[in-house]
Amino acid sequence: MSGKPVATPWLANIERFRRGEDDPASFLARCIDEIERRDGDVMAFVCTNLEQARADAQASAKRWREGAPLSPIDGMPIGVKDVIETRDMPTGMGSPLFDGWQSQRDSASVRALREAGAVIVGKTVTTEFAASEPGPTRNPWDIARTPGGSSSGSAAGVAAGFFSAGLGTQVIGSILRPASYCGVIGFKPTFGAINRGGSHDYMSQSSQGVIAATLADAWQVTKEVVDRTGGDPGHPGLDGPAQVPQAQKPKALVFLETGGWKDAGDAAKTSVLDARRHLEKSGIDILDRNTSVEVADLERYIEDAMAISFRVNAWESRWPLNTYRDRDETKLSAAMLKRAIEGEAMSIEDYRETLRQRAAARAAYEKLAQIAEGCISLSAAGCAPVGLRSTGNAAFVVTGSMLGVPAISLPVLSDEGLPLGLQLLGFDNRDADMFGVAGGLMDIMLGGARA
Amino acid sequence: MSGKPVATPWLANIERFRRGEDDPASFLARCIDEIERRDGDVMAFVCTNLEQARADAQASAKRWREGAPLSPIDGMPIGVKDVIETRDMPTGMGSPLFDGWQSQRDSASVRALREAGAVIVGKTVTTEFAASEPGPTRNPWDIARTPGGSSSGSAAGVAAGFFSAGLGTQVIGSILRPASYCGVIGFKPTFGAINRGGSHDYMSQSSQGVIAATLADAWQVTKEVVDRTGGDPGHPGLDGPAQVPQAQKPKALVFLETGGWKDAGDAAKTSVLDARRHLEKSGIDILDRNTSVEVADLERYIEDAMAISFRVNAWESRWPLNTYRDRDETKLSAAMLKRAIEGEAMSIEDYRETLRQRAAARAAYEKLAQIAEGCISLSAAGCAPVGLRSTGNAAFVVTGSMLGVPAISLPVLSDEGLPLGLQLLGFDNRDADMFGVAGGLMDIMLGGARA
Repeated sequence: MSGKPVATPWLANIERFRRGEDDPASFLARCIDEIERRDGDVMAFVCTNLEQARADAQASAKRWREGAPLSPIDGMPIGVKDVIETRDMPTGMGSPLFDGWQSQRDSASVRALREAGAVIVGKTVTTEFAASEPGPTRNPWDIARTPGGSSSGSAAGVAAGFFSAGLGTQVIGSILRPASYCGVIGFKPTFGAINRGGSHDYMSQSSQGVIAATLADAWQVTKEVVDRTGGDPGHPGLDGPAQVPQAQKPKALVFLETGGWKDAGDAAKTSVLDARRHLEKSGIDILDRNTSVEVADLERYIEDAMAISFRVNAWESRWPLNTYRDRDETKLSAAMLKRAIEGEAMSIEDYRETLRQRAAARAAYEKLAQIAEGCISLSAAGCAPVGLRSTGNAAFVVTGSMLGVPAISLPVLSDEGLPLGLQLLGFDNRDADMFGVAGGLMDIMLGGARA
Repeated sequence: MSGKPVATPWLANIERFRRGEDDPASFLARCIDEIERRDGDVMAFVCTNLEQARADAQASAKRWREGAPLSPIDGMPIGVKDVIETRDMPTGMGSPLFDGWQSQRDSASVRALREAGAVIVGKTVTTEFAASEPGPTRNPWDIARTPGGSSSGSAAGVAAGFFSAGLGTQVIGSILRPASYCGVIGFKPTFGAINRGGSHDYMSQSSQGVIAATLADAWQVTKEVVDRTGGDPGHPGLDGPAQVPQAQKPKALVFLETGGWKDAGDAAKTSVLDARRHLEKSGIDILDRNTSVEVADLERYIEDAMAISFRVNAWESRWPLNTYRDRDETKLSAAMLKRAIEGEAMSIEDYRETLRQRAAARAAYEKLAQIAEGCISLSAAGCAPVGLRSTGNAAFVVTGSMLGVPAISLPVLSDEGLPLGLQLLGFDNRDADMFGVAGGLMDIMLGGARA
């Protein structure tokens, strides 16, 4: 164990900036102190550009002093997952093939963050091509444990207080799983709700998203990005209020086991079942596979979410993996070479059949919008496992990826005294409603102590 | 005038390869002769890699000799629009910002072509970022005229016999317009039907497609690519038979004026109206805005296709244009800077409203599938205009881009003795049906002389 890390929420501080009692340059200096104190252990960063970050924070401090911040996140320190392009730092994608590769441009999201005045602190460790082969990052709650992946450095860095929010990407469980393990908020928007331009996560289940210390911060970062750069081309993009949606206690929720239940540890199960009872006692009606035919139907569809998602990813990875293998196959991990082979064993008709299965699961899920305001489940089978060779089990959080719906992990459960997330799933393009419900759940679970 | 150019169809020759009367190396040598003879005038290429092409054609010749070609397009010479990545040649995107830029990988389509044995001859001239600022290419029918754009070099190169097929991209009219001006087949598949990985056309109306001398060649190239690399992630990809679908005389077609009719020259109008009468005489029922309320309804929706498409593109170009301007705005054309400003003047709500207009037009179009097997119109307002400063009017062919449906330009009309295309639009993911109808129309228009 390494002691409870302390995150650095942002919006909670901006009144003090307005009053001149604090400023973004001092805020960043405190983050840098933490980086210097702990990143030798945590290893959240691939690289930093602290000189630029300090200059940007100074400029932001001046804007706050003059009463003219560019946005509520003007000056906010941000970590950027290293599959997302930045003009001033390389984008290595966790792969020796891209070591030092620099695109000379910011991704759509990073460009929007800079426009909103945010301060890019550094690039955060990702697994190889945001898949399974881990990087060096350790969990700030206990450096003998994985932080989860693939957005490993973004989650660990938020938890450790190195920056207030991290950009991540999720195609299986790469935002919510590390958020669960690191005890922070992990938000994967509806598919297409954040512009993925310049982010190397092009697959049909992949979303860019935000890891942060509070719900309000996660919403604000996403909202400021999308207002400036939209969603993916052809998508409406995240829609909702200018500040985090008001907390709403839902009338009814669905409790999902998902394909992960059989893998969950007893303590994790107890933790989520206690939470369920607590929510029921507060007056929320909770449906499950035993009390609703629609839920039972969905559970059957999502049982295979991991297998379906692996097949989708294998086909959709044929390219560019074949070009990477052409270049130098010795620079691909065994896991990545295996994925290439699995993809090549598929025909386009196999892929179409997989898409049909996914579409059927999505149709079954959509029906739940008639009976509940969201679905809850565990975010992970337990707290972060010991060891750094695996980023852990994603069987719970793959559900939201496969369904394409908004998903968030709330740090309200625990296992072995370590954090464990409660996953909340919303409905297509109703991310704001999901945030309202998330706020309601946080209020109930934390007894009103929500930031 | 420079005399009628002669294209080099591919599939028509492969029986001779099988019999040993010809081979891909000799075929390529003839293409290279034409390149040497005429590319000084036509300027279809940004660069070539003839050494590699000759080696690949020799290897292909060996496979044909051994009776083991990798596919029907094994050895086929192909030109690749210079917004599509190639591992052995730079990808300049028609922009000084990307002059000499090399990605070290093939696009999904190019990688699939190589897997099928095709021979990549060179990179073909595109307008700046596949938009409106022209490159140097001239029309092989008359080098005082534009070849059209943005797939300028791919269309000119096919028409001039430099290669048998060219990869292109279309977001407004960039495949069908140059195909019309150069007298060749231009095929834009259903949105998402060809994997755009590694091709810099990411917008929500943008499709990769194929320009070729014959229907059979256009189908085969597309089919071989998609079988190997799929459509865009999440899309089913082009589906249909292993060879070009059999020609089918349709029972009913829709004649569309589109937003272009008011711009069309008298000779062009006469040419398409003659064609319409000819098709009617052959027994095809042709509906139009005067005889069908559904068609009249659609015509009102597509009247604004150009304005809607420009707004879509302006918003979707905010990024990466802002990053290009950050780098060096002096390397962007005035037209591109104007687009950046137009995009920045829009709010995300403006964009959503534009998406709703587009969705309404698409819904109106979908209804036509109940009453007809496709829609015909002019592909352009007339033959290729004199001058190289503009790539011409895209008001007819923007229709298929805005609707997202498959579209093809058939070289069966004429104006001033120069080629003019008949546009045929099909229905979503029914590209194969559209090819059947296209074959039927070619048979009728050319009296059975179709290759």
